[in-house]
Amino acid sequence: MIIIFNSEVEPEGADVQRVLDYVRDVPGVSAKVHAVRGASRSLVEIYLIGRTDTVSDAALERMSGVERVVRVSEKYRIIGRHRGQMDVPGFEYNGVRFDQDALHVFAGLCAVDSRESVEAMMRALKESGRVTTRMGAYKPRTSPYDFQGHGKSCLPYVFELAGKYGIRVIAMEVVHESQVGEIRDALAAAGSPTGVMLQIGTRNAQNFELLKQVGQQREFPVLFKRGMGITLEESLNACEYIASEGNRNIVFCLRGVKSHLGEPHRNFVDFAHVPVVKRLTRLPVCIDPSHSVGRKDLSPDGLLEIEHVTAQAVIAGANMVLVDFHPAPEKAMCDGPQALQLSELPGFLEDVRIVREAYEKRREARGNVVGAKKA
Amino acid sequence: MIIIFNSEVEPEGADVQRVLDYVRDVPGVSAKVHAVRGASRSLVEIYLIGRTDTVSDAALERMSGVERVVRVSEKYRIIGRHRGQMDVPGFEYNGVRFDQDALHVFAGLCAVDSRESVEAMMRALKESGRVTTRMGAYKPRTSPYDFQGHGKSCLPYVFELAGKYGIRVIAMEVVHESQVGEIRDALAAAGSPTGVMLQIGTRNAQNFELLKQVGQQREFPVLFKRGMGITLEESLNACEYIASEGNRNIVFCLRGVKSHLGEPHRNFVDFAHVPVVKRLTRLPVCIDPSHSVGRKDLSPDGLLEIEHVTAQAVIAGANMVLVDFHPAPEKAMCDGPQALQLSELPGFLEDVRIVREAYEKRREARGNVVGAKKA
Amino acid sequence: MIIIFNSEVEPEGADVQRVLDYVRDVPGVSAKVHAVRGASRSLVEIYLIGRTDTVSDAALERMSGVERVVRVSEKYRIIGRHRGQMDVPGFEYNGVRFDQDALHVFAGLCAVDSRESVEAMMRALKESGRVTTRMGAYKPRTSPYDFQGHGKSCLPYVFELAGKYGIRVIAMEVVHESQVGEIRDALAAAGSPTGVMLQIGTRNAQNFELLKQVGQQREFPVLFKRGMGITLEESLNACEYIASEGNRNIVFCLRGVKSHLGEPHRNFVDFAHVPVVKRLTRLPVCIDPSHSVGRKDLSPDGLLEIEHVTAQAVIAGANMVLVDFHPAPEKAMCDGPQALQLSELPGFLEDVRIVREAYEKRREARGNVVGAKKA
Amino acid sequence: MIIIFNSEVEPEGADVQRVLDYVRDVPGVSAKVHAVRGASRSLVEIYLIGRTDTVSDAALERMSGVERVVRVSEKYRIIGRHRGQMDVPGFEYNGVRFDQDALHVFAGLCAVDSRESVEAMMRALKESGRVTTRMGAYKPRTSPYDFQGHGKSCLPYVFELAGKYGIRVIAMEVVHESQVGEIRDALAAAGSPTGVMLQIGTRNAQNFELLKQVGQQREFPVLFKRGMGITLEESLNACEYIASEGNRNIVFCLRGVKSHLGEPHRNFVDFAHVPVVKRLTRLPVCIDPSHSVGRKDLSPDGLLEIEHVTAQAVIAGANMVLVDFHPAPEKAMCDGPQALQLSELPGFLEDVRIVREAYEKRREARGNVVGAKKA
Repeated sequence: MIIIFNSEVEPEGADVQRVLDYVRDVPGVSAKVHAVRGASRSLVEIYLIGRTDTVSDAALERMSGVERVVRVSEKYRIIGRHRGQMDVPGFEYNGVRFDQDALHVFAGLCAVDSRESVEAMMRALKESGRVTTRMGAYKPRTSPYDFQGHGKSCLPYVFELAGKYGIRVIAMEVVHESQVGEIRDALAAAGSPTGVMLQIGTRNAQNFELLKQVGQQREFPVLFKRGMGITLEESLNACEYIASEGNRNIVFCLRGVKSHLGEPHRNFVDFAHVPVVKRLTRLPVCIDPSHSVGRKDLSPDGLLEIEHVTAQAVIAGANMVLVDFHPAPEKAMCDGPQALQLSELPGFLEDVRIVREAYEKRREARGNVVGAKKA
Repeated sequence: MIIIFNSEVEPEGADVQRVLDYVRDVPGVSAKVHAVRGASRSLVEIYLIGRTDTVSDAALERMSGVERVVRVSEKYRIIGRHRGQMDVPGFEYNGVRFDQDALHVFAGLCAVDSRESVEAMMRALKESGRVTTRMGAYKPRTSPYDFQGHGKSCLPYVFELAGKYGIRVIAMEVVHESQVGEIRDALAAAGSPTGVMLQIGTRNAQNFELLKQVGQQREFPVLFKRGMGITLEESLNACEYIASEGNRNIVFCLRGVKSHLGEPHRNFVDFAHVPVVKRLTRLPVCIDPSHSVGRKDLSPDGLLEIEHVTAQAVIAGANMVLVDFHPAPEKAMCDGPQALQLSELPGFLEDVRIVREAYEKRREARGNVVGAKKA
Repeated sequence: MIIIFNSEVEPEGADVQRVLDYVRDVPGVSAKVHAVRGASRSLVEIYLIGRTDTVSDAALERMSGVERVVRVSEKYRIIGRHRGQMDVPGFEYNGVRFDQDALHVFAGLCAVDSRESVEAMMRALKESGRVTTRMGAYKPRTSPYDFQGHGKSCLPYVFELAGKYGIRVIAMEVVHESQVGEIRDALAAAGSPTGVMLQIGTRNAQNFELLKQVGQQREFPVLFKRGMGITLEESLNACEYIASEGNRNIVFCLRGVKSHLGEPHRNFVDFAHVPVVKRLTRLPVCIDPSHSVGRKDLSPDGLLEIEHVTAQAVIAGANMVLVDFHPAPEKAMCDGPQALQLSELPGFLEDVRIVREAYEKRREARGNVVGAKKA
Repeated sequence: MIIIFNSEVEPEGADVQRVLDYVRDVPGVSAKVHAVRGASRSLVEIYLIGRTDTVSDAALERMSGVERVVRVSEKYRIIGRHRGQMDVPGFEYNGVRFDQDALHVFAGLCAVDSRESVEAMMRALKESGRVTTRMGAYKPRTSPYDFQGHGKSCLPYVFELAGKYGIRVIAMEVVHESQVGEIRDALAAAGSPTGVMLQIGTRNAQNFELLKQVGQQREFPVLFKRGMGITLEESLNACEYIASEGNRNIVFCLRGVKSHLGEPHRNFVDFAHVPVVKRLTRLPVCIDPSHSVGRKDLSPDGLLEIEHVTAQAVIAGANMVLVDFHPAPEKAMCDGPQALQLSELPGFLEDVRIVREAYEKRREARGNVVGAKKA
């Protein structure tokens, strides 16, 4: 159950307090206050959890400052779309806006292997006018005997070079809560030249303790990757763990699921779920074409299959693309076969541009002007 | 093993006969002659099957009229792409061209229920300038107690109305060989006012006897739907059954596969395989967004999810779209929830047009001019 | 809706006719008369299909000769277990009884390759006191270029040798309706020395036309194999097609399903469904350990994995085992790697015997004495 | 690569040191010393990891004290079975022996809800002569709004009651490393009246950081549950993470996998993998019939489906059974529908006994006498 206040109500104000006092007496119900900052306005919401069937909507709606009361289904209470809520807000991080209208390409290294690779990658991004990238320091690997990433030792030069080349947001996987602190410390030591989006990998999609930890901090936004063997609903429920701890700056990432029916691709590409996630939740949707396809096959029409599945996501409204590049894919320490070369970056970006333009035309033709919602 | 002759060689000529005589003596090898008609030229190929490892490439290549000898892998001998073969030929049927460059929308009724529905549908198609449709007369249903289609009794008015509204090709499922004869007879009785593409449904994807039967006739092209619980490779192997019996006028159709990981969609949308099928085979690729998605959900951006997955296939180069419409979806006898209304047809077609244009731009940007190959 | 008559009522009698007359007037309802022969008594049932919600149970139950009226769910009308029905009947064929209490091992050749193999197999069976076997004449294969079975040409010697070695029932796959006639003719020509159980393979599990054909004849019982990529419910619905055409002498066979999660086995072993099928339907349940496991791996405890999964089915009450043997597995033309050698037959049968004994002990311990139901 | 020493060689002795000195000079290779304690004898092994292709087997085998050198595949280095290794050792914990010959039933509460439930459960176990149980204190749940377990607050009474009723080992899930310390502290505070086997749940099967943590401690053995959406090979690779950190006291647990093909069961029962895990690894194998089946359906033969799948695992050699009971299943806070009642415990145990006896007979018939290996 969500109680939405008028836009002039303050989180610490008397109206909010009065509602909190009121529901405190209801047995089996607990309350959390959330301040939502949209593009044009901000507002306060109170989430009631528990046996809310005994709470009266009418009584609450009569209380001072309350604009509307929304009953939500059991699932996706915070990340879900519920009738009557404010327009999808999104968030801004380090100067970059993430919402269901935006589109950002995060091209970068699956695994950081050397300072040289990082610098080559970032230089290429700057030349292409990009301010976002992916950089893997902590790598969860199927076998304990595989390369596990350079960990915190590479953070100083990754952040330094990001600052040098104007990168504002780096998507970086964490596999343990302690790494959030390592990243925070390394960023501070480097003078905060860039920002980090904490990535939760598919193997940790139901590692609820880790989800709670990244949910409790608000400094870094979180990129949540769908679990590879669970349904979309189960993944959204897991993602809700992050939001339920307080952090709502979340991007939901599709990356293919495990099934032999998806062969010859490495995973079964699930980008038909892009519009589904946008319909069920208020989260921006990212896709990872590299881990989905897992191979660098070329179509007879001259486009890579990785580019085709990227186009499939963008034409359906994806908001973020996480894609592997490497200066020398054959030497990459992890997932080399799926990495594109730096020389392929301009073509990749131009392809995304063409498709995004078509997506905007599709929306216009349907009378849904891009950007109009924000005004 | 494929022996490709020079373009002036005739199927019945002496050069071909000489090669046939030569291989007749090789134990465990059998030969089949195929005449391939491309857009610009025709040529003759001999397929050798069996223990071809004892056959000498060099000896064959020295023989008169032989242009090239191609060793093919065990799989997809005829439908597959093999290095050294002529450009992908495609085929023309009743004035409509099907190949890996074309794009046709087959909007129509999943199941024919009444003359009125058929006429309303065909009138709408004519108004939109379309000459292709889908019409289901024979319906395989999960339970024996469900409506099984009107069968041959509806063919007379379906064909008559097709002629009246200028429809040239109707995709129509057959579930038994005898139905091919029923269709042939009904077409003849109606004065051949239209054409039929025989559709093999997903449940019969490995009904090899039916595949052989539609492969032995050459009158009707075949639309082969991927099996719902088997890999792409197994489906392509099954499709090869049709070609191995002689009929190469085949379109391969993706329609989603069965997996709970695809929920909330009815099937797991597999359109990332569009470029894969075009890379592995020489077949045009069709997609069925209605049976994949199975629901009429609307995205927040104003487009239907059925339209989004259609766009995903078209942006990656799909050549044919099989989509359910119905004048009154709530009264449809089969799969009503996934059918679009006739009033939605112009918007659907305009959306496909926008996306196709973007696909052509993508190819141009990559230096692969549409249509250039045919010249 | 099922109307069950008293045991003295005859299928052609006046009581049955009176009910048929009564329901003829109900719009949207059709009726079929079935005579059920159980071990101890026989009885007549009328099945009503269609809009039976308008039919009055009470009115029917007051009619002469009617014992009970049972409303059945949409699914599995005939093969399903419904409250209030007679005890599970089963059937007898050529002197062999098949029901949910029996256990028969059908060891034999996946594919008939030569008269010598057939004779060696049957001799071994006779020496082990067995009267049932499997023999594949018609083989559906994934690729059109693989060995497709000897077809009707091998039937004469298969049937002759079966007679010579006292085999009473041969499980034999058919992939086209015409093969039923070929089998009937070859049996007659050989003087009917044995019997045949028609097997519907997994690839034809939803080939509804073939199911209807084997359902329309009553001469041969049918062994229906679960579809490899569909749910149990969908397979049972397909199996109902056979029964709905009149033939109720059906055995339902589990053979593993396709999923990478079952590796290293060829298919994902689904024998936990043995008690499920016995609970949902009245059909005897067969299992195929050879096609499920697909490999001849030996456990550290000295038993083959094929034997372990067989034991798993038998300990849970399976009624029939279809298992591949071959005199020289390395020379088999089909599925050699999964075939056991003839020298392994006695050990295999002894293992089944030990496990079956334990299953009977489990039932006794639960107060459910084996065979008691038949008395 | 594994270097196995003669049984008289000591871990700290000169022979071992000499080999360590030898391999220290090989670039890219690291070494770990393991002391293996079997039932009858102990021995020392050195594991070489890295680029061992440059290490000479012959040179090592000539060194003093070395009995044999075994090259192992990349996977399952420590948990795997490798030719030439000592017989499977197993381990003993708190007076209970776990190996590939043993069989233990861990009946208990999926989630601890009250002291009363715990006491009722433990009293029933004592009356049945059992010394092992399962008790869930930390519950990972799909939704953040579901009951998450009582956590450390219930540990004092759980351990106290375990002591009172003679329980020696409690299987208990941990979802975060900090809980290992909580358990250690609570056990110490209670005077160590019982023992705990740390359970890693299916959602954490690839939470490698947690696996490393439970691998670094040697106090508690670990019960590792297969991942629900990954292959057996991937699960075994994950399990190897635990062993590679030093703790080899591991039991591998099958609990069904996620697939709609397993319906109507909650998960697809994968117990055909019992002999596979015993063939591929040296680990004892546990099964969880409650989470696999997830429902309390009764077979027509009077046995529960949960009992049937348990029997299927035991007849194939399972070594441990984890099964849910509850004094009042309808009031359980988690997974009530799958819990058996306490009154059903004696019947369940008797059923397991009958089946285990049959398994031992099967082994004897194959000449593999139970227990002989230990002599």
